[in-house]
Amino acid sequence: MILGSDPILLTPGPLTTSPATRQAMLRDWGSWDAAFNALTGTICRDLLAVVNGSGTHECVPLQGSGTFAVEAALANVVPRGGKVLVPQNGAYCQRILKILGYLGRAHVSLDLPEDRHPTGAMIDEALRADPSITHVAQVHCETGTGILNPLPEIAEACARHGKGLVVDAMSSFGAVPIDVARHPVDALVAASGKCIEGVPGMGFVIVRRAVLEGCRGNSHSLAMDLHDQWTYLQRTTQWRFTPPTHVVAAFRAALDQFLAEGGQPARGARYAANRDTLIDGMSALGFRLFLPRAVQAPVIITFHAPGDPHYAFKPFYEKVRARGYVLYPGKLTKVETFRVGCIGAIDANEMRNVVSAVAETLKDMGVSRMEPLEAAA
Amino acid sequence: MILGSDPILLTPGPLTTSPATRQAMLRDWGSWDAAFNALTGTICRDLLAVVNGSGTHECVPLQGSGTFAVEAALANVVPRGGKVLVPQNGAYCQRILKILGYLGRAHVSLDLPEDRHPTGAMIDEALRADPSITHVAQVHCETGTGILNPLPEIAEACARHGKGLVVDAMSSFGAVPIDVARHPVDALVAASGKCIEGVPGMGFVIVRRAVLEGCRGNSHSLAMDLHDQWTYLQRTTQWRFTPPTHVVAAFRAALDQFLAEGGQPARGARYAANRDTLIDGMSALGFRLFLPRAVQAPVIITFHAPGDPHYAFKPFYEKVRARGYVLYPGKLTKVETFRVGCIGAIDANEMRNVVSAVAETLKDMGVSRMEPLEAAA
Repeated sequence: MILGSDPILLTPGPLTTSPATRQAMLRDWGSWDAAFNALTGTICRDLLAVVNGSGTHECVPLQGSGTFAVEAALANVVPRGGKVLVPQNGAYCQRILKILGYLGRAHVSLDLPEDRHPTGAMIDEALRADPSITHVAQVHCETGTGILNPLPEIAEACARHGKGLVVDAMSSFGAVPIDVARHPVDALVAASGKCIEGVPGMGFVIVRRAVLEGCRGNSHSLAMDLHDQWTYLQRTTQWRFTPPTHVVAAFRAALDQFLAEGGQPARGARYAANRDTLIDGMSALGFRLFLPRAVQAPVIITFHAPGDPHYAFKPFYEKVRARGYVLYPGKLTKVETFRVGCIGAIDANEMRNVVSAVAETLKDMGVSRMEPLEAAA
Repeated sequence: MILGSDPILLTPGPLTTSPATRQAMLRDWGSWDAAFNALTGTICRDLLAVVNGSGTHECVPLQGSGTFAVEAALANVVPRGGKVLVPQNGAYCQRILKILGYLGRAHVSLDLPEDRHPTGAMIDEALRADPSITHVAQVHCETGTGILNPLPEIAEACARHGKGLVVDAMSSFGAVPIDVARHPVDALVAASGKCIEGVPGMGFVIVRRAVLEGCRGNSHSLAMDLHDQWTYLQRTTQWRFTPPTHVVAAFRAALDQFLAEGGQPARGARYAANRDTLIDGMSALGFRLFLPRAVQAPVIITFHAPGDPHYAFKPFYEKVRARGYVLYPGKLTKVETFRVGCIGAIDANEMRNVVSAVAETLKDMGVSRMEPLEAAA
């Protein structure tokens, strides 16, 4: 690494951004000023186009982290008497269930192992079994493991049954194809600091206009009232409450670079190359993947921890960090794992470099038995 | 102004920040990384010291704008069966009432004209008249007009009656003296992009520890659950959900500069000099103050619009902006006003310059009759 530089973040947001994105934060913007409001307007327009929602959907930005936007989407779109089915295979699905508990919205979970994804047939069956369900809430790419859950077939099942669909697309938006015209979605949630490669600090919810118009009065919270935020934006071009101006300016710069790169197809291809380079390199070192490759999104990869008694995550993390790369801890309760992101303003060269940093670190730590403890037992 | 530079923001947040504060955003930080978590820890420590709350209070940071933190404070500190008295003399007092409506917390307002502040005696009387009130929620500096509401005597009245006190100190924190040891406060709310001169994107709530410990289960929202945020921070040193990392880094840089300047006394003195320079200059041009000078906080000044038929806010704003200064519209419903902030990384020279820009603009627009319409009628 360049002396004095920061390590590369292989964490799934915050992630490593480009210099141009960070430099966009060197200016101060007035939140009432037309120049700033134009940033907000073009961001919303461009985000809608990413998922083919222009004309049918509206994009409502929201201050805070992605979880704030997920909570706002659920609170606004699901009426107080609604009931939500949550296909559940990871930490972010569990977070949706927790939010629904806070909101006092009835819910039922369809629990799956963390390495298996729900299918359209499972959703069909669950909706048939319980006609009181009004909505499905799905995590598209479950960041807890990195599994890609099939949005198209779940959207089709919801459409067949006339149920609403709320999608947490936090880690997939911009990287994985999403087409809300082909696969109907009521609300799709993501945030600035993910695959568009902005900095963290704002989320956004893409909501079908007809649904949004009916959301008035649903929200439990003034700050998270998307209907109120939307109507105020329409009337004034301004956010209701102080926007994170520098984060918004960086997001505009990041979107410009996203579009210049070639939009979702190009972004998805770069991330897929990052993923494949990382998986090939780590597999050659003897690491085992937690997920089958077929369901592995190009976002974050979960590896089993080596079973060697010299391995421990903390020193492993510190030593790889000293070599220039910040890894991510695992988020599974039953098996010891760690995660490596492949998103951010980085290319496959960095993935080769992190594999080399990991190889050096294993040697340094005296780790040689790579099979996970569970597999060895 | 320097060609190509941005105008100075005379808006009460976002405001003009120093280059050092903005440059702190040129680095990417991992939200799990020890280096970043140390930023959060020292920020909370230093914020507590600003209001003499070290040892008795805890500082809980929260993603989003200041309003998110105000809503979180009310939702967490006021139990579901509580009742809140709101002395009301402006837009941000009204926002507290609106939030209480969303939260379903009983509340009563003590309405005052916008140019008059509540007194300890008024609070005494209201608390005596309605013993079911459990808390008072007060705006310290009401940004709608710029009036300073007397925190010390309101805190003393609450203490005499054994009632809780929640203070929206958004615009006063760091500029106006606050001492939670002398004048008891249960929860005090402010945000990054105000008088500490960071960029917008996070708020914080300073809560008496004994009160915070009893907040479990009060929150209507997962994202805004301060008790959960606090316990998670204590256990892990991390925010529960993705923090606005660049905003946090800028806030640390801004706090360093705040402390180097001499803390609240020095910051307050600079802002008071800004205020006095601005008021003297604008008065010499014939502008009339909305507030009596004795109750005018050193934060934002409300001026009556000139009664001249050639005056209109929009072109006035545009022409002053072209001369390098962004003003702020009025927030009063009954009289036409505009506002000028005197906070941010600027000194009294800028206040003289804005007065000169305003003078040129008035000449340019052909505005000569300065008495407000109301005064003329």
